[in-house]
Amino acid sequence: MGPATNYYVHRHAFPLYRGGSLASLQLAWESWGTLNAERSNAVLLFTGLSPGAHAASSERDPEPGWWEDMVGPGKPIDTDRWFVLCVNSLGSCKGSTGPASINPETGRPWRLSFPELAIDDVARATRLVVDHLGIERLAAIVGPSMGGLTALAWIKHFPDSADRMALISTACSATPMAIAIRSLQREAIVTDRNFRDGRYTEDDWPEVGMRIARKLGMISYRSASEWQDRFGRRPQDYFPTTPFGMRFEVESYLETHARKFVGSFDPCCYLYLSRAMDLFDSCDSDKGLRALFRRSFSGKALVIGVETDLLFPLWQQRELAAALEAEDAEVEFHALASAQGHDAFLVDFERFGPPISAWLD
Amino acid sequence: MGPATNYYVHRHAFPLYRGGSLASLQLAWESWGTLNAERSNAVLLFTGLSPGAHAASSERDPEPGWWEDMVGPGKPIDTDRWFVLCVNSLGSCKGSTGPASINPETGRPWRLSFPELAIDDVARATRLVVDHLGIERLAAIVGPSMGGLTALAWIKHFPDSADRMALISTACSATPMAIAIRSLQREAIVTDRNFRDGRYTEDDWPEVGMRIARKLGMISYRSASEWQDRFGRRPQDYFPTTPFGMRFEVESYLETHARKFVGSFDPCCYLYLSRAMDLFDSCDSDKGLRALFRRSFSGKALVIGVETDLLFPLWQQRELAAALEAEDAEVEFHALASAQGHDAFLVDFERFGPPISAWLD
Repeated sequence: MGPATNYYVHRHAFPLYRGGSLASLQLAWESWGTLNAERSNAVLLFTGLSPGAHAASSERDPEPGWWEDMVGPGKPIDTDRWFVLCVNSLGSCKGSTGPASINPETGRPWRLSFPELAIDDVARATRLVVDHLGIERLAAIVGPSMGGLTALAWIKHFPDSADRMALISTACSATPMAIAIRSLQREAIVTDRNFRDGRYTEDDWPEVGMRIARKLGMISYRSASEWQDRFGRRPQDYFPTTPFGMRFEVESYLETHARKFVGSFDPCCYLYLSRAMDLFDSCDSDKGLRALFRRSFSGKALVIGVETDLLFPLWQQRELAAALEAEDAEVEFHALASAQGHDAFLVDFERFGPPISAWLD
Repeated sequence: MGPATNYYVHRHAFPLYRGGSLASLQLAWESWGTLNAERSNAVLLFTGLSPGAHAASSERDPEPGWWEDMVGPGKPIDTDRWFVLCVNSLGSCKGSTGPASINPETGRPWRLSFPELAIDDVARATRLVVDHLGIERLAAIVGPSMGGLTALAWIKHFPDSADRMALISTACSATPMAIAIRSLQREAIVTDRNFRDGRYTEDDWPEVGMRIARKLGMISYRSASEWQDRFGRRPQDYFPTTPFGMRFEVESYLETHARKFVGSFDPCCYLYLSRAMDLFDSCDSDKGLRALFRRSFSGKALVIGVETDLLFPLWQQRELAAALEAEDAEVEFHALASAQGHDAFLVDFERFGPPISAWLD
């Protein structure tokens, strides 16, 4: 959490979607730009699984954010015009309450005693910050990846509260392939010898499991064609060669990413959010996706997908766009030819910038 | 190893492709059909990473084999006509010498003291059995998956020794995505608390690592579209629900496969063969694939690939077929629409049977 992080503390019971309740909770958030007098220019960003509220740099915090090239003055989400808000997801570990937080009743971290988390809870907790800022209606909600699930949960719980909705590299529910990958990531973490049912310490961190989870994540976030062009079969010479690893550049690329990730995200938070993504189904209380849109959204929608996305394949974005169109929403759909797979929204700004910019205009 | 397994013991030094040497070695093999007087009807099958020599059932061993629907009387590889031979790969653990075998010098299993294994060694060891049977020239070599790499190594080391060559769901070398997946499988095994640099015992088996490796294998062997149709988001009710696993049918499917695999394959053998696949490059001593074919193969080729294969993507089979065609080989290429990904050759006999049958006729 950087110097631009704000904290909202909610000192009331917060009942959770799948049962249980939190006696109180804290949410970390950041904003960029100025909320106008009518409070009508707010753009709410929902995040993917691992980023915090720091979407972009600012005067208070010059550190680049997770969507640095997308959010800022003159950028596609233009902070000269919009008041942009990003809240760290409930259940995460970047300043908001989650399994890594101290349970006030015991004085110890929640870890596995945290109640089951749903994407619906992430959306409902985010609403507390929006209310706190006195914003009744959002100019736009923007959800990439897990953030798109949160956007769908948002409209489900708060129908017609946003003029615009962007669903980016996301879906109405996880495919069995996505479930299989996330399930295996979780298995690697919970079977790590240091995990010990959540009783890990800083000195005995489930590092092996987190490394495997991150590398499997990278395999599912990028694409075979990107790696073919980028790495081919070039040997690596950065990390010492172990008996069965690190002979190819693609291996040292994964290693670098895994090392960065291991200490920066809490294993239990990862498990809770990962599981919440699998269980989320935006149609679970409706007759289907069309019924959700009919009941909850009548604004201007943008749906973007990428041809090489393995985790949220393009047919899922087509499905979202088709359901919106069938309910007479004003919907714009873009299938982008990015090579970077699911992660393209984080790196391919040449392709993602223009449609987002034009749609917000 | 079943009642139909034969063993060939080679009591001479066998120098290995990447250095080192085995003082002697044993190879397990099976055959079906009858070798004719001219010894001209032999079809040699190379296997994928994990199967043994038991490709099909027989009178001596009625247990179904790994290519049961492909090999037998009246089947696409018709044992009424062909003498079919399958040898367990050197480095494997199904009767042939490998890291799980006893090192005669120490009286203990080789494990990580086994010299580095190359696909070239698998091909060269297989040749010992072919020689032993007095077969000078093969009617056909057939290589699916890793077996296709072995077939390419075979023609490299023994040019013009086969009339026909079938390369099925294979490639001239691994893509960076395939390397990334196998590297992560190996990492899961070597970081298992029980692996202990290869000093695992039957009571302390690196079960967690092998389970993760197998599940990741299944993710790469099958396809998202198959699982979408087969499992969708159906819940599972077979295995007890753990906190972060086993809520969906696709998870219990992976669990079932992992449980079957864990005890049936030696972790070190897996590591050695997996690494050999990454390092194999059929062009490494040539000016390219075309040079290999020009020098080593002038027969009738069959190349088959599957649209949904993630591990050996279709462009790799197109590359093989194009290189063969450019060298004026008689080549037949089939891109099959199987949903089952890389594993399709093991299950989709409706699509794989006819082209193999017609090509052998």
